[in-house]
Amino acid sequence: MMKAAIFGASGYTGQELTRILSGHPGVKLVAVTSRRFTGQKVADVFPSLQGLNTLQYQDAAPAQISQESDVVFLALPHGVSMNIVPEFIKAGKKVIDLSADYRLRDIKTYETWYGKHASAKFIKNAVYGLPELYRPKIRKADFIANPGCYPTSIILGLAPALKKKMVDVSTIIADSASGVSGAGREPLTGSLFCEVDGGFKAYKVGKHRHLPEIEQELNVLAGKKFAVSFTPHLLPVKRGILSTIYAKLKKDISLADLHALYSAFYANEKFIRICPEGVYPNISSVTGSNYCDIGLAVDPRTKRVIIMAAIDNLVKGAAGQAVQNMNIMCGFREDAGLKIAPLYP
Amino acid sequence: MMKAAIFGASGYTGQELTRILSGHPGVKLVAVTSRRFTGQKVADVFPSLQGLNTLQYQDAAPAQISQESDVVFLALPHGVSMNIVPEFIKAGKKVIDLSADYRLRDIKTYETWYGKHASAKFIKNAVYGLPELYRPKIRKADFIANPGCYPTSIILGLAPALKKKMVDVSTIIADSASGVSGAGREPLTGSLFCEVDGGFKAYKVGKHRHLPEIEQELNVLAGKKFAVSFTPHLLPVKRGILSTIYAKLKKDISLADLHALYSAFYANEKFIRICPEGVYPNISSVTGSNYCDIGLAVDPRTKRVIIMAAIDNLVKGAAGQAVQNMNIMCGFREDAGLKIAPLYP
Amino acid sequence: MMKAAIFGASGYTGQELTRILSGHPGVKLVAVTSRRFTGQKVADVFPSLQGLNTLQYQDAAPAQISQESDVVFLALPHGVSMNIVPEFIKAGKKVIDLSADYRLRDIKTYETWYGKHASAKFIKNAVYGLPELYRPKIRKADFIANPGCYPTSIILGLAPALKKKMVDVSTIIADSASGVSGAGREPLTGSLFCEVDGGFKAYKVGKHRHLPEIEQELNVLAGKKFAVSFTPHLLPVKRGILSTIYAKLKKDISLADLHALYSAFYANEKFIRICPEGVYPNISSVTGSNYCDIGLAVDPRTKRVIIMAAIDNLVKGAAGQAVQNMNIMCGFREDAGLKIAPLYP
Amino acid sequence: MMKAAIFGASGYTGQELTRILSGHPGVKLVAVTSRRFTGQKVADVFPSLQGLNTLQYQDAAPAQISQESDVVFLALPHGVSMNIVPEFIKAGKKVIDLSADYRLRDIKTYETWYGKHASAKFIKNAVYGLPELYRPKIRKADFIANPGCYPTSIILGLAPALKKKMVDVSTIIADSASGVSGAGREPLTGSLFCEVDGGFKAYKVGKHRHLPEIEQELNVLAGKKFAVSFTPHLLPVKRGILSTIYAKLKKDISLADLHALYSAFYANEKFIRICPEGVYPNISSVTGSNYCDIGLAVDPRTKRVIIMAAIDNLVKGAAGQAVQNMNIMCGFREDAGLKIAPLYP
Repeated sequence: MMKAAIFGASGYTGQELTRILSGHPGVKLVAVTSRRFTGQKVADVFPSLQGLNTLQYQDAAPAQISQESDVVFLALPHGVSMNIVPEFIKAGKKVIDLSADYRLRDIKTYETWYGKHASAKFIKNAVYGLPELYRPKIRKADFIANPGCYPTSIILGLAPALKKKMVDVSTIIADSASGVSGAGREPLTGSLFCEVDGGFKAYKVGKHRHLPEIEQELNVLAGKKFAVSFTPHLLPVKRGILSTIYAKLKKDISLADLHALYSAFYANEKFIRICPEGVYPNISSVTGSNYCDIGLAVDPRTKRVIIMAAIDNLVKGAAGQAVQNMNIMCGFREDAGLKIAPLYP
Repeated sequence: MMKAAIFGASGYTGQELTRILSGHPGVKLVAVTSRRFTGQKVADVFPSLQGLNTLQYQDAAPAQISQESDVVFLALPHGVSMNIVPEFIKAGKKVIDLSADYRLRDIKTYETWYGKHASAKFIKNAVYGLPELYRPKIRKADFIANPGCYPTSIILGLAPALKKKMVDVSTIIADSASGVSGAGREPLTGSLFCEVDGGFKAYKVGKHRHLPEIEQELNVLAGKKFAVSFTPHLLPVKRGILSTIYAKLKKDISLADLHALYSAFYANEKFIRICPEGVYPNISSVTGSNYCDIGLAVDPRTKRVIIMAAIDNLVKGAAGQAVQNMNIMCGFREDAGLKIAPLYP
Repeated sequence: MMKAAIFGASGYTGQELTRILSGHPGVKLVAVTSRRFTGQKVADVFPSLQGLNTLQYQDAAPAQISQESDVVFLALPHGVSMNIVPEFIKAGKKVIDLSADYRLRDIKTYETWYGKHASAKFIKNAVYGLPELYRPKIRKADFIANPGCYPTSIILGLAPALKKKMVDVSTIIADSASGVSGAGREPLTGSLFCEVDGGFKAYKVGKHRHLPEIEQELNVLAGKKFAVSFTPHLLPVKRGILSTIYAKLKKDISLADLHALYSAFYANEKFIRICPEGVYPNISSVTGSNYCDIGLAVDPRTKRVIIMAAIDNLVKGAAGQAVQNMNIMCGFREDAGLKIAPLYP
Repeated sequence: MMKAAIFGASGYTGQELTRILSGHPGVKLVAVTSRRFTGQKVADVFPSLQGLNTLQYQDAAPAQISQESDVVFLALPHGVSMNIVPEFIKAGKKVIDLSADYRLRDIKTYETWYGKHASAKFIKNAVYGLPELYRPKIRKADFIANPGCYPTSIILGLAPALKKKMVDVSTIIADSASGVSGAGREPLTGSLFCEVDGGFKAYKVGKHRHLPEIEQELNVLAGKKFAVSFTPHLLPVKRGILSTIYAKLKKDISLADLHALYSAFYANEKFIRICPEGVYPNISSVTGSNYCDIGLAVDPRTKRVIIMAAIDNLVKGAAGQAVQNMNIMCGFREDAGLKIAPLYP
């Protein structure tokens, strides 16, 4: 069994990694860290995990975690990961960082959006961990920058259209909505039940920090530079992201042809499901699972394509994708530990 | 006291009319009809109204309702209203039809989207009941085609920008989300709690019947013909619509100037609230009220304006707007019966 | 116009008082205090109130508030009110305290459950503000201890049965469930959307601080001392309390007779609605309103009566009842400002 | 691989069986029936199952299903199962009936609560499928009457206390709350999102059909006849049941001793988790899993024990328990296919 550790394990993403790894056939979780809950058992903080995990949270130094484990997941806030990751890399561990700290290849862009980087020289070591696009590199990697949740949905949704140069890239708009777990488990007024339930609103319009990550990858796919509009909204659900993406078609295409093209592009992908024609993805159909469901519409009146991509932000948008990356890096079956059927209803 | 009747009063819109009229100082509700609940008391079907309404539902003929009342609200499905409205018009009643039957001025467009019209000649009698744009006509009207819920949010959101010719109309995209009450009280599988809660999905992409209504009014505002993209989504909330609207700016404008322009445009409107700069509307801030909250963003990177408009679909999107129209038509204060503070949280 | 002030106005109860008083025909709200939001406008903290309230929160001293206002509402945590209330009483103001500080007539009981009292001598000045039971005293009072939310539902539910000595008091069990707004607007992990949505659990079983208040009033009604079981649960809704109350009947009674007895007991009460036989109250039928809906069942197999009482915890369980008390004390119609129809759906 | 079929597979319970069996290592699902969706693919009716199940619903006769399968699950309404079960029994299949038709051993009781039984003579063949209490019989059984959801939570919650004769059985009250999926997938007005969300109410007070089943098993455990009070409530959640159970203690017991007793009673049970002292179970901690979480409180003031039991009504309350029974009957590991971590948050 490979030994895994989670740094920053008491947030929702850390919890989700704990949940998923508890069912992984080839991995033993040996350490979980949390400043806030040091000394408490995982199962006391998350009673759902009683019987599935017997660890307790520690406030261990990276060096100690390094000694005990073969692979390390970092579920820390951006700006914190950057101080710890180098130690694990130097120690020769497999590292999967779920923060934003090493996702942007351009340090200037990073510092514009996030502030000073403390270990910028390691950025070049990181492989952007979107398996559907970077699988060969991930296979050889030791260090993964795990993608953000919104970017995962938007990049997977647009990849076939961009690769095939079907759309006018200057017209791309991504209108997204996320469940509240995306805001983490910090006790913030804006995440309170009474503030969220029955509500729906946009936030950080055109200013969300996932924007440069989205543009970086869309630009790579299209082979040129361009900016996109991205509007995140807060949904009154616990999990799930739906991105509804608009773009002008460069030339007419039927829905059937578009559907065939997307189906072919993702034909060998276990975690991408193209919805039947006329069916649109629902976040509740992927809840708890590592699937990304993609639906398609063509609007001949406006010559636009509308692409909808749904994921569970904590799974394909975070912990599940991290495990998928680990599986690829470490030679497991890509879906090991991830054969989790969505929970519906 | 003016005497009012509601035809089709046992759906959510009919119930909302009942709720609002129960607090109207100048109106007495004298009759409510419902095939499904004939003979039952309103308060038995909607226990929330116990003590506020003592009527029982009848399956009365229009002629009878006509005799008893001065103003008639029709909260019937489209295709049904068209058979009944003429009788009330001929009887000289004030009529407010909440269905889609008389909203589209072009009969061909109507029949393309909805099917055969049974009383097309009355379409020309109808005034489109959006007070912020058609108040003078409403004041003199006897027959109101009350706007649809999505159209209300989108038209109010775009009106200042279109009137001022600020945007390239070929780039307009309206991405909207509605609470479940918009689907009515019919027992449909898709409206079940278990199908909706925790979910979010688009539906009728580019094909929703509110599209021709939206385009009709946007075209009037812009003074030319054009098509728009409109994608409705189903939100796991009971009430509320948020429309997030995108368009390319024809020339640069600062957020401050845009905000000033919108504030001036709606300066005398009691039911339009322009959010402070940097604040975006939340449907939970208008719940239960007749307000339309509008928020604004300018994205200089993509030269787009993003306009967000929030309403309660049952109030400003249906029953509240109907009462607002009645108030204008009948000489009441425009906010009579509508001084209802939003219910938050 | 009478001038009112709210001390501690930025919590959910304070906000609800602001909402209700904005529609009161005889009261002008002149001051609202909040440490956390000093200097901010009410409408910036609660956008739902934009256009309804133009005040800004101050961190004013009681003496200053006292000068400006005729009646003062205190929506402060218990243990804080006790330090401020005396100043208002001495200044001759009408005072309505929504905390627990003056509800318990026995200082020893108070200090057992809540800790040291700083102004115990004023307890005797306070009238327990449950209008349906204490209206004559409230009419002559200057100082009201406004009841707790759970106690309101349980006491109103049991009052007729206890007054008529119908039940064996040693068998009383109150199983209650409350919406999350009962926990206030403090950013607590346990109140986060992700912690509450989809969940349901009991808390403080047999140990909730509302227990001595419940027992105090039930004992008065029955004319003897006894203890009850009380189990609160946390519901994934924003507003509302439902108490399901069990007791052994001392002798057989038909549902019809029980229903008649309850209807007679509350015959003149505007805010108590006895559900028809066979109908049980739903918290969503009272949301936003000052109603208490009571439903009844008799179980001949076990000789128990089951009484269900539903209120909106922020209205009849807090702010609405406070305004009702003010109306009685100050000579307004008892329902002034409180003719708010429940918001359904 | 053992071949399994599901009769009535398009309801929520049928869907849940499909989900669970898709991950069972020793079972191949070979047929699913549904009148309503005959000819449609499972994955078209439940998009969550796309990629996990390729069957389509058939309207097959029992005889045909019988030929194809080794074990048959019936997820049909009561009153329907009774007409089909005999055929499978006669054909020598392992049968697990999830309806109420064979749970009550006394035919008179059945017919009092449910109406005429069409195949009463098979009742004696059925083993009540609560593994924690009937495992030895289940091991030898061919025909299982799978318990109801409410009964599962209440019987498991009370079993240790009754076996140890700790409580006065005449004082037992079970106050339960269930998620909406318990009402099935039929499009009923009462199950609509707008009718349920934000609400909470009791229903069928003292008259729910699970009552005789609860009493049957509690009487067996206590070794005598008695009646209990049972009040179900409808929760605005999709999945989950919490039963809060009250009873007078026959003699004093400390919480520590009670906790030790329950822990010992269920020491070898994989699916029962006793919460730590002072912790109460939350339905969201068992969602999607086969766990039953039990919490305990002792109220010395009233000499009552309060027992809280939480399950997922579709899993331990239906499909999961059915698979657990199949595992025991068919010689699989008892948790085969059921190692599903709860989905939290």
